[in-house]
Amino acid sequence: MTNRVYLDHAATTALVPAAIEAITRELARLGNPSSLHGSGRDARRVVEESREAVAAAFGAHPTEVIFTAGGTEADNLAIKGGFWAARSADPARNRVAISAIEHHAVLESADWLGREQGAVVDVLPVDAEGRVDPGAVGGQDTALVSVIWANNEIGTVQPVPAIAEAAHRIGALAHSDGVQAAGTLPVDFAASGLDLLTVTGHKLGGPVGVGALFARRELTLTPVLHGGGQERDVRSGTLDVPSVAGFAAAVDASIADRADHAVRLRALRDRLTAGLATLPGVRVNGPTAPDEVLPGIVNASFDGCDADAIVLLLDQAGIDASAGAACSAGVTEPSHVLLAMGRTPAEARSAVRFSFGRTTSDVDLDRLLAVLPDIVVRARAAGSLSSW
Amino acid sequence: MTNRVYLDHAATTALVPAAIEAITRELARLGNPSSLHGSGRDARRVVEESREAVAAAFGAHPTEVIFTAGGTEADNLAIKGGFWAARSADPARNRVAISAIEHHAVLESADWLGREQGAVVDVLPVDAEGRVDPGAVGGQDTALVSVIWANNEIGTVQPVPAIAEAAHRIGALAHSDGVQAAGTLPVDFAASGLDLLTVTGHKLGGPVGVGALFARRELTLTPVLHGGGQERDVRSGTLDVPSVAGFAAAVDASIADRADHAVRLRALRDRLTAGLATLPGVRVNGPTAPDEVLPGIVNASFDGCDADAIVLLLDQAGIDASAGAACSAGVTEPSHVLLAMGRTPAEARSAVRFSFGRTTSDVDLDRLLAVLPDIVVRARAAGSLSSW
Repeated sequence: MTNRVYLDHAATTALVPAAIEAITRELARLGNPSSLHGSGRDARRVVEESREAVAAAFGAHPTEVIFTAGGTEADNLAIKGGFWAARSADPARNRVAISAIEHHAVLESADWLGREQGAVVDVLPVDAEGRVDPGAVGGQDTALVSVIWANNEIGTVQPVPAIAEAAHRIGALAHSDGVQAAGTLPVDFAASGLDLLTVTGHKLGGPVGVGALFARRELTLTPVLHGGGQERDVRSGTLDVPSVAGFAAAVDASIADRADHAVRLRALRDRLTAGLATLPGVRVNGPTAPDEVLPGIVNASFDGCDADAIVLLLDQAGIDASAGAACSAGVTEPSHVLLAMGRTPAEARSAVRFSFGRTTSDVDLDRLLAVLPDIVVRARAAGSLSSW
Repeated sequence: MTNRVYLDHAATTALVPAAIEAITRELARLGNPSSLHGSGRDARRVVEESREAVAAAFGAHPTEVIFTAGGTEADNLAIKGGFWAARSADPARNRVAISAIEHHAVLESADWLGREQGAVVDVLPVDAEGRVDPGAVGGQDTALVSVIWANNEIGTVQPVPAIAEAAHRIGALAHSDGVQAAGTLPVDFAASGLDLLTVTGHKLGGPVGVGALFARRELTLTPVLHGGGQERDVRSGTLDVPSVAGFAAAVDASIADRADHAVRLRALRDRLTAGLATLPGVRVNGPTAPDEVLPGIVNASFDGCDADAIVLLLDQAGIDASAGAACSAGVTEPSHVLLAMGRTPAEARSAVRFSFGRTTSDVDLDRLLAVLPDIVVRARAAGSLSSW
């Protein structure tokens, strides 16, 4: 694996050294943070210090941090827990509004509420570059509005404060999945006006299997995981001290140099975008203005190619890239994100995502740009043989 | 912490060296197991080898293993996901039967289904030693029956195969929470006849934050966490490779010497039970026959004492023990388990749990038995001043 070029940091990125240190340290600790005895209290102290660090990094109060097993669980808790709680308080509120380009964790949660729990799901459209218009928020009886802070496939950044304001105008809760945004954009819970915000560890240098839902203090969510009553009775399950500590260490490290990191990623992005522009029939998807797109994601459609073919040929050349989100990799469905932006199914099926992280260098892009012209030709030749 | 005596292994126990090695190794790996490229496939291979190890250890097929973030999530998925799926298939099936001494993850899940999802919850009583009578299973229109394999507070082992059979006789799914049983009893999914079985990592020497629900292949559960469709579309969320690998390593290590380990724990149990018998007004709760109780748990009521006072005084003496389950530690409610066994609230409030693990030695019991007589006297003096 040593010589591979990893350009899939949006799927998961490497642990930062501070996170590895924190995890390793805490793996040696014995004690359940819910236990009253000395070992339990020591473990609890680590959790609460981590909670304070994560809260401070994202403009939240420590009591607003609910640790979860990751972004998917936090999204499920926000969407289902928020919907159930809002409908409980006012049975007329039975609508959930989500954008057309949500992560599957939001999309499938809302869809299930619609199919099985009596919710009506409104889908907010996006423009050709993946932007949601806050003016589209407005369905009466809406319990909850959820719009992804920055999209995981194409990187489009949304006007989150305006969307939160629009949601509040109709008395709805506002949630955003900030999983991809949190490592590279200034994400401030209080300033955003959101009621609920999802972040996760493994997209910003922390471990997989831990994340957080920020939830405003006055909110009472319906739990998705019932049990012993941990995390303000909203999320039960033994607290995972090593992961929580590793998450907090990664958040600290990530916030400390976030601006510089973003500048570095943006330079890589600009270079790849320019390189792709020299290839015929290749088009970058998403906004072009630097402040409207994540610095570390480049999504491009390759006319006449199947994205899976390009990913496979890149893989053979030792380069890791992705056709859409990792969660649904392997599924041949065209990306719902690109379809929502008005791309044809063929265009959507031809889109490859390259995403950068702390370990990405110009050498990686050298290797990618060296092999890509030939790979596009080969993928196009293969594509012309297939039926679509 | 070095010199503390830790007698709360049922709350969480130390990682075995093989688990630490596996976690440490996998923390250095980069790659999302759902990604198609080389790094993703390498990560996927680790997950699938771990799945095979966990399946083999508990008499299951690899496709029957659903990795979760722990026992609480697995219980929630079994109870809610099983209920929703069974009721979907047959709308008349709206009952859930659980024993009176379930872990809170099962209890609160069932309770919520009753309050919010139209379920009728039947509670199966237990006898004075905490045993469920399989003959009590029989409510018509029952979707799911759940009885804990071995109770986490008192250690009572249930007749699981007979309960599974009784559940099937009425067309219901059978689930058991095997979290406490899995490390010390022979737990075989296929032989049990169960449809659903919960195990978790951190009770048997693996990490916190990972567990598994075994689910028979032909079952279709309704997900509790929706999203990218990982784990046969039943449990979404990026797979946590280090934790999964650590869990599998701990399971392997645990199964390898389970019988010897149980014999060693039972000797400690017998010694503590004998020691407690010499103290006036102290009574061990639960069965006395060795094969009817977990080898590593001793639960005792201390007449005229408040368990929290004993735990506090033990803590001051450097000994970690627990008043009931860790999840609800700090809550002053008397144990629902002891109340269900017919104890008075005062008796239930006086119960302390001592639980043993791989690191527990006779030296630990020496220290406990040396301080306990004096602590009981002091707790009793404090208790006589309080109102109950």
